[in-house]
Amino acid sequence: MTVGSLITDVRLTPILIADAPLLNVGGVHQPYTPRLIVEVETDSGIVGLGETYGDSVYLSRAAELARALIGMPSGAFNAIRSLGDRASSELLADIPIAGGLRGALTTDKVRLSVLSAFEVAAMDAYGRELGLPVHALLGGKVRDRVDYSGYLFYKWAEHPVADAPADAWGAALDPDSVVRQARKFFALGGFRSFKLKGGVFAPDAECAAIEALAAAFPDHPLRLDPNGGWSAATALRVAERLRGTVEYLEDPTTGLDDLAELHRRTGIPLATNMVVTSVAEIAPAFARDAVQVVLSDHHFWGGLLATRDLAAVCRAHGKGVSMHSNTHLGISLAAMTQVAATIPDLDYACDTHYPWQAEDVITAPFEFDGGAIEVTDTPGLGIELDRDAVARLHERWRRLPALRERDDVAAMRAADPGYRPIRGPKF
Amino acid sequence: MTVGSLITDVRLTPILIADAPLLNVGGVHQPYTPRLIVEVETDSGIVGLGETYGDSVYLSRAAELARALIGMPSGAFNAIRSLGDRASSELLADIPIAGGLRGALTTDKVRLSVLSAFEVAAMDAYGRELGLPVHALLGGKVRDRVDYSGYLFYKWAEHPVADAPADAWGAALDPDSVVRQARKFFALGGFRSFKLKGGVFAPDAECAAIEALAAAFPDHPLRLDPNGGWSAATALRVAERLRGTVEYLEDPTTGLDDLAELHRRTGIPLATNMVVTSVAEIAPAFARDAVQVVLSDHHFWGGLLATRDLAAVCRAHGKGVSMHSNTHLGISLAAMTQVAATIPDLDYACDTHYPWQAEDVITAPFEFDGGAIEVTDTPGLGIELDRDAVARLHERWRRLPALRERDDVAAMRAADPGYRPIRGPKF
Repeated sequence: MTVGSLITDVRLTPILIADAPLLNVGGVHQPYTPRLIVEVETDSGIVGLGETYGDSVYLSRAAELARALIGMPSGAFNAIRSLGDRASSELLADIPIAGGLRGALTTDKVRLSVLSAFEVAAMDAYGRELGLPVHALLGGKVRDRVDYSGYLFYKWAEHPVADAPADAWGAALDPDSVVRQARKFFALGGFRSFKLKGGVFAPDAECAAIEALAAAFPDHPLRLDPNGGWSAATALRVAERLRGTVEYLEDPTTGLDDLAELHRRTGIPLATNMVVTSVAEIAPAFARDAVQVVLSDHHFWGGLLATRDLAAVCRAHGKGVSMHSNTHLGISLAAMTQVAATIPDLDYACDTHYPWQAEDVITAPFEFDGGAIEVTDTPGLGIELDRDAVARLHERWRRLPALRERDDVAAMRAADPGYRPIRGPKF
Repeated sequence: MTVGSLITDVRLTPILIADAPLLNVGGVHQPYTPRLIVEVETDSGIVGLGETYGDSVYLSRAAELARALIGMPSGAFNAIRSLGDRASSELLADIPIAGGLRGALTTDKVRLSVLSAFEVAAMDAYGRELGLPVHALLGGKVRDRVDYSGYLFYKWAEHPVADAPADAWGAALDPDSVVRQARKFFALGGFRSFKLKGGVFAPDAECAAIEALAAAFPDHPLRLDPNGGWSAATALRVAERLRGTVEYLEDPTTGLDDLAELHRRTGIPLATNMVVTSVAEIAPAFARDAVQVVLSDHHFWGGLLATRDLAAVCRAHGKGVSMHSNTHLGISLAAMTQVAATIPDLDYACDTHYPWQAEDVITAPFEFDGGAIEVTDTPGLGIELDRDAVARLHERWRRLPALRERDDVAAMRAADPGYRPIRGPKF
């Protein structure tokens, strides 16, 4: 063994997980969201776990790339990272909603999202084999706890369809109910900062919600993220109103020049998960100082080494770095926590949807304490797969072919048959 | 053990190693060059090796920082990397010659140079403990051999002082003797590209040497490096003459705007080891497209993880990356080879002074084959310390206090008492 036992099997299990009716700029979450569970087995009998997007485009690419993974050593992360990198960057969808508000979707982003789960699974396996936590494979942790923000959403009380999962969070459609949701978050996990997903209601209403949060939680850093749903003029108006109230605005608008001017005029830091989502997008955005904080997502940047690389690029440009999250389970939360623990200048609490997920595929789901997750030293990711849960959620995936693609627009049409997502600024 | 056994001892041994009378823009190498050998011992009795600059400013900083290293786990590379990072960046010397042609020397560069040896020694120890090569601690190798260029120098036949070490290379002061030196290099190690250290003679003479090399080795990529010794006008003239003959010019001149214009006008790629030598220098140089290839040096960027970070920044900007070298021994060559093996887009052969070093502190000095070093899978760096050699070279250091600082100017004055280095362009 030089860099880990050889990978002998890659098991890909698509699942559907219950999701709440969370609203965003382009629609609403469906009752169920697809995820892909990856198990990498080595010739020493060790199994490592990974997780990524589960829409069909990811499933087919994963099936293809899994063949190339067989026979590779589990510790060959650099080699795993370049699997299939001769692929084109064909545009698959140019509506940001597709694939879950992550910028335009390209074949290469799909590849990287698949490889992220392969790399994480390989790291989990390699760490288990060596008796080392994943952070030790990334140069070691520099902190013992990773802070997460409480991720607030406007939401309906329930899905507008039959047989949908229920949740205990209630509706949140105005400032008061957003504050109520924040209080529940705080009681649940002691979150010390809050992010509100915006772009749903008129900007003034969302500003009012942020101001209500600021009044209720005066010591909590706050963020508002309309997913690029505002025009440059609206973004400027919001920035002027919320300057001093939010620690940053996330993707207030989408034009690089507009973002740069917004920052220049207001001084408000701008974070992004939509305009810098791939290596090629870094240089133009940084050259204009269009963003000040990049929210990495190890899924679509291509894994944990890629996340560290992004942090290095941000450091070289004096940019802040933190982490984005889309609907995900405990495998990915473990991976996010392990890599975040190794990045010294991760100065903002990471985002995570995790508290919204009532289901998980690990035997001991995470709990937040003081808004943070403890960085485990248990070998690998420090988690175990709940195979019964995987089987059950996979069975649901088999049973519900109509929900195998995440489609926030379709979900919205269940309530509003004439609903059409808006191209360009919504407000 | 979570991230390696604890470091219980750090041994710092300054040595003087024989060096040849190699000429550069600011002087000539002294008969002996100081290096610092670092041994990190852990509570499991394992010893890891590192090597860095050995001038007194490095020795005192190393003695200071070594105290902070005691008690840390050998695998805590991220934490080691930030030791002492509250230090100021006071300018220690603004003549590039100081510290060996590595840009202006600051307190922070000294700190990083010391930490690079600590990190490498810790990686060697951690790798030995885990039974893994260092590349496996960096995500695994993506190649089995690392290419180096044959590093040619103008030189005298011998040092102009008594009791100096002799070398078998002879003088090289004109195109014919440079070609002769290249043939020796090729016979010695099969080097498949050559770099000539320039800035010594008039640019036309150095162009003639490059053209003679091109005639003798038509399939070998060539480089010329005057260490910033040319004015912008001279650099433009040389670039126009050597366009198509060299794969790049290294530090032809030092102004970022001049470099940018030179590249814009000639299209010739420009490499640097002088204008991008620290994180703060990256953004301004890249914003102007002043350089196209950055030559990393793990010593002064702060280690192997820092080298990978630099490669990531270069990748994000479409810049090439390769490796710089200053006078060094086998410990550093092993470290360079291990990290270079993990960087997929390391597209240029690395530089190394190594063939010029007749002495070494490892039991089995490296040999080049086809211009390359094989990437070992032996645990750690795959080398063993020759303690007798260390003792002998340390004894020399004790005996020769006047040579404990590398000073190419002082060495030149031995031949030319009135010699003064030129501030600003030499040609």
